[in-house]
Amino acid sequence: MLKGSQSWLFEHSPIILSTGVTGGPFEREGRIPEDFDHFYEDLWMGQDSYEKAHRILIEDAVNIALKKGNLKREDIHFMIGGDLINQITPTNFAARTFSIPFLGIFGACSTSMEGLALAAHIINHNGAEYVLTGAASHNAAAERQYRYPTEYGAQKPPTAQWTVTGAGYAVVAKQNEQSERLPKVTSATIGKVVDMGLTDPFNMGGAMAPAAVDTIIAHLRDLGRDLDDYDLVITGDLGEIGRSTAFDLLQQKGYSVHEDRFLDAGLLIYRDEQQILAGASGAASSATVMYGHILNEMKKGVYRKVLCIATGALLSPLTVQQKETIPCTAHAVSIEM
Amino acid sequence: MLKGSQSWLFEHSPIILSTGVTGGPFEREGRIPEDFDHFYEDLWMGQDSYEKAHRILIEDAVNIALKKGNLKREDIHFMIGGDLINQITPTNFAARTFSIPFLGIFGACSTSMEGLALAAHIINHNGAEYVLTGAASHNAAAERQYRYPTEYGAQKPPTAQWTVTGAGYAVVAKQNEQSERLPKVTSATIGKVVDMGLTDPFNMGGAMAPAAVDTIIAHLRDLGRDLDDYDLVITGDLGEIGRSTAFDLLQQKGYSVHEDRFLDAGLLIYRDEQQILAGASGAASSATVMYGHILNEMKKGVYRKVLCIATGALLSPLTVQQKETIPCTAHAVSIEM
Repeated sequence: MLKGSQSWLFEHSPIILSTGVTGGPFEREGRIPEDFDHFYEDLWMGQDSYEKAHRILIEDAVNIALKKGNLKREDIHFMIGGDLINQITPTNFAARTFSIPFLGIFGACSTSMEGLALAAHIINHNGAEYVLTGAASHNAAAERQYRYPTEYGAQKPPTAQWTVTGAGYAVVAKQNEQSERLPKVTSATIGKVVDMGLTDPFNMGGAMAPAAVDTIIAHLRDLGRDLDDYDLVITGDLGEIGRSTAFDLLQQKGYSVHEDRFLDAGLLIYRDEQQILAGASGAASSATVMYGHILNEMKKGVYRKVLCIATGALLSPLTVQQKETIPCTAHAVSIEM
Repeated sequence: MLKGSQSWLFEHSPIILSTGVTGGPFEREGRIPEDFDHFYEDLWMGQDSYEKAHRILIEDAVNIALKKGNLKREDIHFMIGGDLINQITPTNFAARTFSIPFLGIFGACSTSMEGLALAAHIINHNGAEYVLTGAASHNAAAERQYRYPTEYGAQKPPTAQWTVTGAGYAVVAKQNEQSERLPKVTSATIGKVVDMGLTDPFNMGGAMAPAAVDTIIAHLRDLGRDLDDYDLVITGDLGEIGRSTAFDLLQQKGYSVHEDRFLDAGLLIYRDEQQILAGASGAASSATVMYGHILNEMKKGVYRKVLCIATGALLSPLTVQQKETIPCTAHAVSIEM
């Protein structure tokens, strides 16, 4: 049901039945390895290209989510997902493997919550029994497409972020007898495309912060909620610069935010000693942290109500070459125990 | 409401309130110029790159749809759309212009019906008052990304197709006092990703035909319908080879099809004397023909029930270089007067 001008309230609170989270070797060395279901020894995942390896990340995350949910692929009515690679081919090819009716989406790093919003909308209105949704990214595949192959050893400024190698997928379903102990999707806010005129593709966090704030404020307005209604507000991949910008912007606009209840997934994945510059990024940043760490924390009772905001920079190397500024968006989904 | 395993029945039959269809100079010389709302003198549309021109195609189609629907952009709750360019940047940038909450989708040339299916689902369940949805492509922008810049004068085999320069957008809305005389969206079937092992990127129609047939059969099974229930079954951009393959496949599988009630949008846009090889293609092929020509014919009483199937080849230049086969999909939407 539409609430306000850009939000959905899910009256039947679809559940997140199960999730699958995969990661690369660098993620295994990070801060939250116990929240991943599977790691790989190297970035190749047994394939002969990074893009094919990228597909494996997705397929394994889906298979894990299905297994944990006690489901077969035939039980899933629709798969909704995407990634950062041109024409989202890793996800397209994974969808081929599973032969599940597939809706491809592209929201750059906002893909995870775009997918969860749509999945919850479909489940909430009896459009399916089970919907699979998720997002993924692969560091080396993204680097060579967006910047330079990592083998070139190109240097980056301290505002740059590190693309996560990983995939996070969730099975969204109608409430059942297990609902009591499972997280529920209660609302979603679809973001506008916000562009503050920034042009530096090595500072995506800074560019995305205003979009995150725009969506958070729209969410609170549409749902008649306050930031205090959430135990945790977590953004997808703003990194250090984006997070502090978003924090300041919210305060400037009169929203009081608690430092420790306003986190960024891009600052949770890696350890301080890992050289990731301003933080993690990539479609897998929000997907792995929210479907892994955050849902685990919710099940442990650490958080009861969480607002997840996945942010995306909707540029391409070509738009940068053509001197365009960076349009950004953010989609928010509230998850409650 | 889910019907069968991969379809939605829209009990409240959302209406297509208005549409906007733009095209390039080559489309103006085609078979159905009167079904376009606006043409451009050249492929630049006043911009300094084909990608920026591509954005203009979309913006103008949206503005025309809004104007014909007597709506302002603030009336639209969500925009759902995509194109063929990497990271769907022309659509992202158009969404920035309109500042409407935006859901980016990627289904290659199946984007038009993926968007219409989602838009109708959202409207049918009170998720919005008005949703804008559409798809677009630009011949020169697509050529230089997928093949070679047209300026190189590279030759193509007769199985190749011609990417349409155009955009088709529609405003989907709840039924109102005008509903009687407007087309309604009654059901949708989301396609699986089908790959028959074809590898020739210059024969997309042939590769996509099995996906079209798979979705048509799933649609008839899920909805308990027969091909005869439709006055017209129209595919998006199979072209000559794909259409005849799909026609034969359907007959092999025991579905009797009438030649003149099984058309392809890719064979309707241009005149025989235009050198387009096997037919038109591109995300705008289905979007311009279905939102332009077909809906106009329905309003004139030529067709009463139409099944629109937009087909997409989910490959990329990189997957071809990496010797992958071509995964394809097709989404079907039934539109009735």
